[in-house]
Parts: sequence; structure tokens; C-alpha cells
Amino acid sequence: MSRNGVAVVSGGLDSVTMLYDGLFNRGWRPTVVSFNYGQRHVKEIDAAREVCGLLGLAHYEVDLEDYGKILSYSGSALVDPEVKVPEGRYDGENMKSTVVPNRNMTMLSLATGICIAQKGSFVATAVHAGDHAIYPDCRPDFIGAFAQTVRLANEGFLVGDFSVEAPFVYKTKTDIARLAAELGVPFHKTWSCYVGKDVHCGRCGTCVERLEAIHDAGVESLDETVYKDRNYWKEALGR
Amino acid sequence: MSRNGVAVVSGGLDSVTMLYDGLFNRGWRPTVVSFNYGQRHVKEIDAAREVCGLLGLAHYEVDLEDYGKILSYSGSALVDPEVKVPEGRYDGENMKSTVVPNRNMTMLSLATGICIAQKGSFVATAVHAGDHAIYPDCRPDFIGAFAQTVRLANEGFLVGDFSVEAPFVYKTKTDIARLAAELGVPFHKTWSCYVGKDVHCGRCGTCVERLEAIHDAGVESLDETVYKDRNYWKEALGR
Repeated sequence: MSRNGVAVVSGGLDSVTMLYDGLFNRGWRPTVVSFNYGQRHVKEIDAAREVCGLLGLAHYEVDLEDYGKILSYSGSALVDPEVKVPEGRYDGENMKSTVVPNRNMTMLSLATGICIAQKGSFVATAVHAGDHAIYPDCRPDFIGAFAQTVRLANEGFLVGDFSVEAPFVYKTKTDIARLAAELGVPFHKTWSCYVGKDVHCGRCGTCVERLEAIHDAGVESLDETVYKDRNYWKEALGR
Repeated sequence: MSRNGVAVVSGGLDSVTMLYDGLFNRGWRPTVVSFNYGQRHVKEIDAAREVCGLLGLAHYEVDLEDYGKILSYSGSALVDPEVKVPEGRYDGENMKSTVVPNRNMTMLSLATGICIAQKGSFVATAVHAGDHAIYPDCRPDFIGAFAQTVRLANEGFLVGDFSVEAPFVYKTKTDIARLAAELGVPFHKTWSCYVGKDVHCGRCGTCVERLEAIHDAGVESLDETVYKDRNYWKEALGR
């Protein structure tokens, strides 16, 4: 039996792979939601929309652009045009500027509203182990506390059990790249680059992380993505 | 010393009274945020804006109107024009149609993002004891779980302690009306009516609840609000 729920999908490799995995391996029948919070790499949402079209899934875009402007006071590199996106190693101290305050809690809360409205029983997020160091809202503790808070907030209005599905929370990005290859995810139709120009830059933290994972999974030959600089990641990581 | 934080203010009597109380009794220096989720009584936001002007407080409106359209599938009376707002007793079974799925969790999550961006240390909500029966997201258990989830979600990014201030969580609406009178809150500048026409209808659940509280607090003479039907509430409640 398939499960009705809402998947938060940015359009990046992780969340798109989660969608394929949910659909083909986990019996999900998800509605997909993406968030425009004024991120400079908003074209990731086009990627999400296109993939949902391929998979025949309903896709909603929630417009938080005005909200993102309020947040820009925070100095987050993802929403403030004055702050330069850091290059190089993804897990470095410098990636802290890419934190959007309370992002996953907010996106999952909005997704939960849609889930309940549609009488679904789960929300899904593609957080993974590689995010734990920098992003506290990608850790298992947060996921568990969030689910419990949802149950309290909506007692009597939930259809059966409610769960937060985070299938990659203990997986590495390399695991995800390997799974993506197995599932036939079209790598080049996903968007990761935080800079958000015509093609993937290959130099920002998330490009470096993506290229390393695809390399380490041994699936480079399947990645048709165009990168402006496909080799910088090795230098950045000293490999 | 004053505390920097974010107060969620709808423009109704409860949240406006919380603002006066916070400002004059609790040392808050709040930024105020209101949410437009396509509620038919969106004019409450005008009330919030005007009160913030009187008090010299910054006011943000977060536009969730498109999101509200997605939620309208839920059949919530507050966002779905096809559903009639129920009249009469506020705590009745019929008020369940006024539940917006996961509303407080979503609004507080968005407010928390602004709070952290502004290096504040609290978010505030005017939930009160009278809401507990129908709205699970107004109960103390939810408030506590929410605060803990925020701490986990934003570990390392919070300025000192973070708290969710819910000063009315154990107070009745009558207590709030009494406090409003003591603090000089201009009742007629607050907006409660769920129908959202030119003047308060006096018949919807929230008008009935408001009129009862103002009566029971013995402060009717201070309430300059215009109600289309000022006496219906007694009939509705059998008093």
C-alpha cells in the first residue's frame, strides 16, 4: 500500500534521489514541495519541477521570497547578495555563512501543514550525515524532536501515525550518489550549485561536495552535468 | 535590561494585549510579525500594523497567501471561502473547522528564523487557556516541545538562552480582557472577528468569546468596538 505524504525537495542530488528511492523502494506517494526563500540558487526549484514532471508527481512551490528579505539581515550567504558564497571544503568553518536560520524547521513545518491538509501521514527530508557537523537542523535529534512536536501540535487532527522520514540521516553523500546511480536518477537534471549561474560552478562548497561524492561512489561516467570547473574539487580537498 | 525578540501578533485582543504587557511589564523590545495566510479576516493585520505604529515597534507582514491556497484543500473555514464560519459558542465542536493545520508551529518557526537572524532570544505567542480544548497547538506541552526543538535545530547559532514566551498560556480570555483594560489597550483598535467584514459581526465564535470575556472582566464601558450584533453572545451562550 502506498503512503500519502509530503516530500521537501530542493532539486539537489540528495532530495531528488530521496524522491526516486521513496517512489520506487518505499511505497511513497508523495506530494512534492519546494521553497523559494530568495536563495541565489533559486534555479534548483526549476530542477525540482522538471523532475516531478518526469515522475508524474504534483509539485508546489511555496513563495517565501519576502520572508527571505527579512532574514537577509542575518548575513546568510544564501539569501544576502552582499555576502560571497564560500569556495572549497564543504565542512569548513566558512560554510557557516550558508546557514539560513531555522530553515529545516520552517520548511518542515510548512510541509507538515500541507501533509495534514491532504490527510497524509509523513513529511520527508533528505538531510544526510555529511550535514551534521555544520547544520544542527540536519541531525537525528532534531528530526525526532520535530516529529514529537508535530504530534503535540496537531493532536486529534493527524491521520494515524505521523512520521518524519529522513532516509539518509545516517548515510553519507557518497552513499546517496551510489543509490542515485542504481535508481537511474538523471544527475544532470538535479541542481546543487549555491552560486546558481548557467552551469554548476564546480568551486562552491556544495559543488565540491557533489563532485567528491560522485567520484567516490565511482559513478562519474553517469554524471552528464556541466561544471565550469570540474577538477577544482580535488585541489580544494587536497586529493 | 530589555530583551530583543519576535512577537507573533495577529491584531486580535490577545496578541495586542501581550504586546502592551511585554513592552510595559516584561522589558521586551520586540519586533512584531503578522502572517497573511489568506484568512478571510486578513484585516486583523491592519489592526496589528496600526497598533505597532502607536507603540513605535517594527512590524513585518509575512505573505503566505499562496501557501494558504494549498491549505484550502483542508476545508478550514479560515482559508476556504466555500466553508461558512461557524456562529455561536467558541469551544464547541463546530469550531474545529477553524483549525488551520500546524498553524502555530509554522508561524512560530518563521518567527524563530527572524529572531535568530536578529540575534534575539525569544519568540512570543498569545495562546491562552481557553484555546486548549480545540487547538492542540495552544497547549503548554506543545510550547515546551517547540522550544526544545528550536534549541536542537539551531544549536550553536542561538544568542544565549532561547525561550518561547507564552505569558497567557494559563490565563483565560477574561483575565486577558482585564489586563488589557489595566494597560490601556485600545480595544476598538484590535480585530477579532473571523468573518472580517466592515465591523465585528458579534456572532462568530471569536466575537462571542471576545464579548463574553470583556463582559466578565467588567470592562465593557472601555470597549468602543462597533459590533453589528452586540447582544447575540448572551443568547449563544444561554446567559
